[in-house]
Amino acid sequence: MVRTRLYRDGVLVSEGFPVAEVSDHVSDPGNVVWFDLCAPTAADLESVAEELGLHTLAVEDVFQEHQRPKVDVYDSHLFITSYWLHLEDGRLHSVEVDAFATRNALVTVRESEHFDIGKVTARWDAAGALAKNGVSFLLHGLLDYVVDAHFELVEHFDEQVEKLEEQLFEERPMTREDARRMFTLRKNMAGLRKVAAPMREVVNTLFRRDQLLATPEMAPYYQDLYDHVLRVAEWTENLRELMSNLRETHMSQQGFRLNEIMKKLTSWAAIIAVPTMITGYYGQNVPYPGFGSGSGFWSSTIIIVIASGVLYVAFKKRGWL
Amino acid sequence: MVRTRLYRDGVLVSEGFPVAEVSDHVSDPGNVVWFDLCAPTAADLESVAEELGLHTLAVEDVFQEHQRPKVDVYDSHLFITSYWLHLEDGRLHSVEVDAFATRNALVTVRESEHFDIGKVTARWDAAGALAKNGVSFLLHGLLDYVVDAHFELVEHFDEQVEKLEEQLFEERPMTREDARRMFTLRKNMAGLRKVAAPMREVVNTLFRRDQLLATPEMAPYYQDLYDHVLRVAEWTENLRELMSNLRETHMSQQGFRLNEIMKKLTSWAAIIAVPTMITGYYGQNVPYPGFGSGSGFWSSTIIIVIASGVLYVAFKKRGWL
Amino acid sequence: MVRTRLYRDGVLVSEGFPVAEVSDHVSDPGNVVWFDLCAPTAADLESVAEELGLHTLAVEDVFQEHQRPKVDVYDSHLFITSYWLHLEDGRLHSVEVDAFATRNALVTVRESEHFDIGKVTARWDAAGALAKNGVSFLLHGLLDYVVDAHFELVEHFDEQVEKLEEQLFEERPMTREDARRMFTLRKNMAGLRKVAAPMREVVNTLFRRDQLLATPEMAPYYQDLYDHVLRVAEWTENLRELMSNLRETHMSQQGFRLNEIMKKLTSWAAIIAVPTMITGYYGQNVPYPGFGSGSGFWSSTIIIVIASGVLYVAFKKRGWL
Amino acid sequence: MVRTRLYRDGVLVSEGFPVAEVSDHVSDPGNVVWFDLCAPTAADLESVAEELGLHTLAVEDVFQEHQRPKVDVYDSHLFITSYWLHLEDGRLHSVEVDAFATRNALVTVRESEHFDIGKVTARWDAAGALAKNGVSFLLHGLLDYVVDAHFELVEHFDEQVEKLEEQLFEERPMTREDARRMFTLRKNMAGLRKVAAPMREVVNTLFRRDQLLATPEMAPYYQDLYDHVLRVAEWTENLRELMSNLRETHMSQQGFRLNEIMKKLTSWAAIIAVPTMITGYYGQNVPYPGFGSGSGFWSSTIIIVIASGVLYVAFKKRGWL
Amino acid sequence: MVRTRLYRDGVLVSEGFPVAEVSDHVSDPGNVVWFDLCAPTAADLESVAEELGLHTLAVEDVFQEHQRPKVDVYDSHLFITSYWLHLEDGRLHSVEVDAFATRNALVTVRESEHFDIGKVTARWDAAGALAKNGVSFLLHGLLDYVVDAHFELVEHFDEQVEKLEEQLFEERPMTREDARRMFTLRKNMAGLRKVAAPMREVVNTLFRRDQLLATPEMAPYYQDLYDHVLRVAEWTENLRELMSNLRETHMSQQGFRLNEIMKKLTSWAAIIAVPTMITGYYGQNVPYPGFGSGSGFWSSTIIIVIASGVLYVAFKKRGWL
Repeated sequence: MVRTRLYRDGVLVSEGFPVAEVSDHVSDPGNVVWFDLCAPTAADLESVAEELGLHTLAVEDVFQEHQRPKVDVYDSHLFITSYWLHLEDGRLHSVEVDAFATRNALVTVRESEHFDIGKVTARWDAAGALAKNGVSFLLHGLLDYVVDAHFELVEHFDEQVEKLEEQLFEERPMTREDARRMFTLRKNMAGLRKVAAPMREVVNTLFRRDQLLATPEMAPYYQDLYDHVLRVAEWTENLRELMSNLRETHMSQQGFRLNEIMKKLTSWAAIIAVPTMITGYYGQNVPYPGFGSGSGFWSSTIIIVIASGVLYVAFKKRGWL
Repeated sequence: MVRTRLYRDGVLVSEGFPVAEVSDHVSDPGNVVWFDLCAPTAADLESVAEELGLHTLAVEDVFQEHQRPKVDVYDSHLFITSYWLHLEDGRLHSVEVDAFATRNALVTVRESEHFDIGKVTARWDAAGALAKNGVSFLLHGLLDYVVDAHFELVEHFDEQVEKLEEQLFEERPMTREDARRMFTLRKNMAGLRKVAAPMREVVNTLFRRDQLLATPEMAPYYQDLYDHVLRVAEWTENLRELMSNLRETHMSQQGFRLNEIMKKLTSWAAIIAVPTMITGYYGQNVPYPGFGSGSGFWSSTIIIVIASGVLYVAFKKRGWL
Repeated sequence: MVRTRLYRDGVLVSEGFPVAEVSDHVSDPGNVVWFDLCAPTAADLESVAEELGLHTLAVEDVFQEHQRPKVDVYDSHLFITSYWLHLEDGRLHSVEVDAFATRNALVTVRESEHFDIGKVTARWDAAGALAKNGVSFLLHGLLDYVVDAHFELVEHFDEQVEKLEEQLFEERPMTREDARRMFTLRKNMAGLRKVAAPMREVVNTLFRRDQLLATPEMAPYYQDLYDHVLRVAEWTENLRELMSNLRETHMSQQGFRLNEIMKKLTSWAAIIAVPTMITGYYGQNVPYPGFGSGSGFWSSTIIIVIASGVLYVAFKKRGWL
Repeated sequence: MVRTRLYRDGVLVSEGFPVAEVSDHVSDPGNVVWFDLCAPTAADLESVAEELGLHTLAVEDVFQEHQRPKVDVYDSHLFITSYWLHLEDGRLHSVEVDAFATRNALVTVRESEHFDIGKVTARWDAAGALAKNGVSFLLHGLLDYVVDAHFELVEHFDEQVEKLEEQLFEERPMTREDARRMFTLRKNMAGLRKVAAPMREVVNTLFRRDQLLATPEMAPYYQDLYDHVLRVAEWTENLRELMSNLRETHMSQQGFRLNEIMKKLTSWAAIIAVPTMITGYYGQNVPYPGFGSGSGFWSSTIIIVIASGVLYVAFKKRGWL
Repeated sequence: MVRTRLYRDGVLVSEGFPVAEVSDHVSDPGNVVWFDLCAPTAADLESVAEELGLHTLAVEDVFQEHQRPKVDVYDSHLFITSYWLHLEDGRLHSVEVDAFATRNALVTVRESEHFDIGKVTARWDAAGALAKNGVSFLLHGLLDYVVDAHFELVEHFDEQVEKLEEQLFEERPMTREDARRMFTLRKNMAGLRKVAAPMREVVNTLFRRDQLLATPEMAPYYQDLYDHVLRVAEWTENLRELMSNLRETHMSQQGFRLNEIMKKLTSWAAIIAVPTMITGYYGQNVPYPGFGSGSGFWSSTIIIVIASGVLYVAFKKRGWL
């Protein structure tokens, strides 16, 4: 299905028409046009850029890797870069979602089909009454969906932290697998922060400074979006703090366990070494009292039993065993 | 009992009247109306929203989880989100307390009955002389109660830190239970910070920027509230520092204890191993001096006693035993 | 002695008169009146508040615990809270020192007699030429004394850090007592920071924004006070850094010592275990070469001496002994 | 080849002419002149400075070591210092790249030939259409190349961090070589941050405040450059976080391994020590049950096998072996 | 030699005249007078203060210890405090260097002769052409010399960090002496930061806000000085990061070494303990197979050799030996 839409006076007039028709619609300022490009070629973008008068730099940025979320303000249009995130087999993957916004057209450019643009159009349809705000409305729907993905991730991380906390005081020591899970969680949280933190500036730029898209009706919605972005940032910060707590408690547990092991080791070593010493004494080829006689057997056995018993009780009392 | 109140010229005129009557009272700007909703349904809120002209976004926010304390400023009303906290079995629980404030009406929305609104009304009654400041006065009473709960928590945490400090230099090493208590305390402090830190911005927004509710007489009271919020923040920060001190001293103690144990282990191992070696010597089936004769018995016994004694004294002197 | 003073045109006219006379003097704007309350009752303060027209909130704050240093600006007066600190048996104690400042009256309210107000009056007398600046002059003297106490504490802490540094590289390992001293020092530094850091804002508010007390002649003195406050803050920060250095070096020393002990342990264990193994061999009831003959004795003895000697020299060479 | 260029109306008119001709061209404000100095002597620079009226301080700065990236704004010219970075045998090396920019002349001063100015001229030629923006265009090309080098380094560091992460959970413990690699990586990252962080201010100064070179057409290009600089900074920050994660996980692994080793040690020590104790018992020269008879042999052997077996199974069950 | 100078119209007119003549020269606004006081008495300063109309507070500050670098702006003069640093036997020492600057007079006050004022006058002479800028020129020369001392220290610290880095991966473990060197280096770096960080504000205040001394010609020189101060700050920060890297890598090495030692310990313990157990078996006084016969000797010897060999190879393979 072709991802195109035409709104007029806040009403969805047409949908799914060929991209070629876009140029006809966009010339009429009363129209609001949207279309979507998924993993476009340079040529695809070139023709769109010409149509809508987009700046070369913005078009180039679509193909540059390792971008950061941002808004570039050009004379006649905005270029927005954001990152949608999802987990796959526990690893964080990001999909670049770009948007060109002119006064009456929005072009969304997805890096791959992993980002389901259908979910965005569904949102637009659900909030139909606001559609008369044009591009500002469409852009809000797009960014709201992106930020919600960030939010869901933080929620997921929160659950994982909770799980790790529950394990922390269990008897069994942490396995290599647990360590890996903890490591990956922290790595993923850093990955989220990398693309979520700059969203603050992105949304702030859009709803504060920009005259191009401002409509008073959308203002609270952008403020709400900004609030979501803040929540993601603050929650992530909170999770970092909880992770530090976890990590440091775990380290301290590890030290605690080492001390426990050393005490046990010492205790048992003593309980075994002392009888060995005694039998050594009675194994000497010298005429010690009881050498070769029953009294020797009894004294040796009794000394061994008493020495071991005393040691065992003493260690038990001090809590070493 | 129905939680409703009607003030006129700073005097409590009526109380406990049905929510249905609210609409009659609220239309008269000389009246100040309050009513409370506890865990309302969407329908409940919908009807209130219509009555008072509340923005859809604000109403939606009541039902969204994982909010952060904030003030949303709409044209005709404010929406305030805050979190009241209490400890249950050592775990921190939060209750969302929202408020819609128009020029002459305050609607409080509690997440559950855990938050005792009766305590708030009691405060209002105690400070009756200020009641003529209308919604500004009522809102102050509400937030003051919420912030006081934060403050009591910090006081409680302070006591717990004090207790942990006292344990730190006791003879007995920290148990698993102590570690868990320390972990939970730090987790709870992070939980408090999460909802207490944004209160700074909330109170600041209310008493600095907002024309809607500003009355000169309430200004010092909001400033006082702001001061409370700051105290919570600074005190929590101070407790964090004390906790780091605790944690790091504890880690260092743990290392200290490990060294002590290792020294003891070494000492006793030597005191046992040396006699064992000597008896081994006298256990050889070769004609060493004293083999099979009394002189052998005496020399063996004397060497063992002297060797052990010398080692014991040497270790005692170096402080290893 | 009653703590009251009356200045007129910068001259100390009367001193030690009953508090009851204050109301007569204060009504004349040409007079500057000071009096001191130590641990006053609510009734005491109530009557003063009425006399001087103090705000209820300010009066309430005197009795609230866990305040933070601050200036509250009311229409006709200022309320200043600060904390004087002193060490007792190595523990930090704070005494709340409040002040109400109107245009021509200063009321100082001390929490206890630990704070010696006589030292403040002595300062006032020493700087007599500035007395014509009225309340601004008196307040400066008070705060200067409070901040000097903070400063003396930092100096004291600096000496303690220096002492700990000297101990760091001594032979003997840190005792439990040293650990406690380090812990307490850090705790005290946190306690100082808690009440010293907000003084920046207090002094800043007084000498920048406030019209009530501003006199050009006092300006450099308040700036000087501000500079003292900054010095306390910066020096404390510097001490924190030195403490981290201390703590981390100490941790690393501890690890170093553990390694040393482990090496010694290993070395001696080997030196004892090898002869034991050899005597074990010669203790077997099998006809090994030299069994029951003098050659066996000599070979056993020689092997033991050589093995032990070689091990001892080898370990000595590697620096393990 | 002499590195000189003359542009007129955005067209490259002449190239490679002797530096001596520069003075003729530069006097005509319609011309834009560039020339390059590689590791110049003081005399070289002196003559250029006189020609173009450069400030003594700027000229001196070229020869001072340990500079930081900066823009110095003089009345008639700018002096820009930046650092180009490259890795050689894993070590980070920096090459100082300075530039004097007057209204119609750019002088680039390279510390050494390591910085390939040919790459910069190639960039200028590739973006020929912008050449009519004169010095602003030329300077952008230069800085863009420098910042790209920073960017490539971060990408390289990212790959190295990724590799280290993969090794983290491999069976084999980290070798000294791995530790060194980790150490060098972190050192290099600090080295990059040292010269990349101040670039923010450099680019910001150029595209915000400076009237000298401002052309509206270049504005988006400088903004794009600024964005690159930000990306370098944010990515480096992100890598630091990942490195902390790595380092702390590694430390925790190390503790984990130590515990594992201690457990194994304890277990095997017990499994060996217990039979030794039993044989000691049967080696005594006293008439224990079975002394000198077959029953003794059997009971000794059976006890040894059972004791060892029981210990082995017990330790296996607890996961110590 | 008396340290006095008289400039007129940027020319050094007279030098080394008695301080008593200063008052004659200073009254003529066309003159610029400098004189130096080294470790002056209170009386010395008193008379100078009277002559030049200096504020009492500024004069008092000269004698107060534990100052911080600062500029105090008085109506007719500035008071500048800075600290010159030098290393003696590896310890950092600071010398307070104060300056009073009026419109046409500069008084420098050194704490001790360690600060060589001759180096400052030499700088003044070297930059003679700027002397017509009067006090602004003289003050710049003074501060430039102070900041250069800071800069040289950072360079020295950088070299020391480099040296420590080289040692880090050497075979031999860190000695107590190395630890002390590391500790002292970090302490010295904190000492430098203490007096270097506030210089930013000092220089900033002088070249931005101050009308008293401003001359357009000196502006780039003060900006250059500010740049030096920034470099010191940034470089110190960079060194801190490198030190953390060093310290943490060192800690990790220590843990690594402990693990290595433990493995070796375990391995050798096993290689010795197993033969001991076997000889114990053959030492039993029970008729085991081979008891008292040649076959016993051979079987015992062969089992011992094989067991030890197998263990040695096994441990070698796992890299424990």
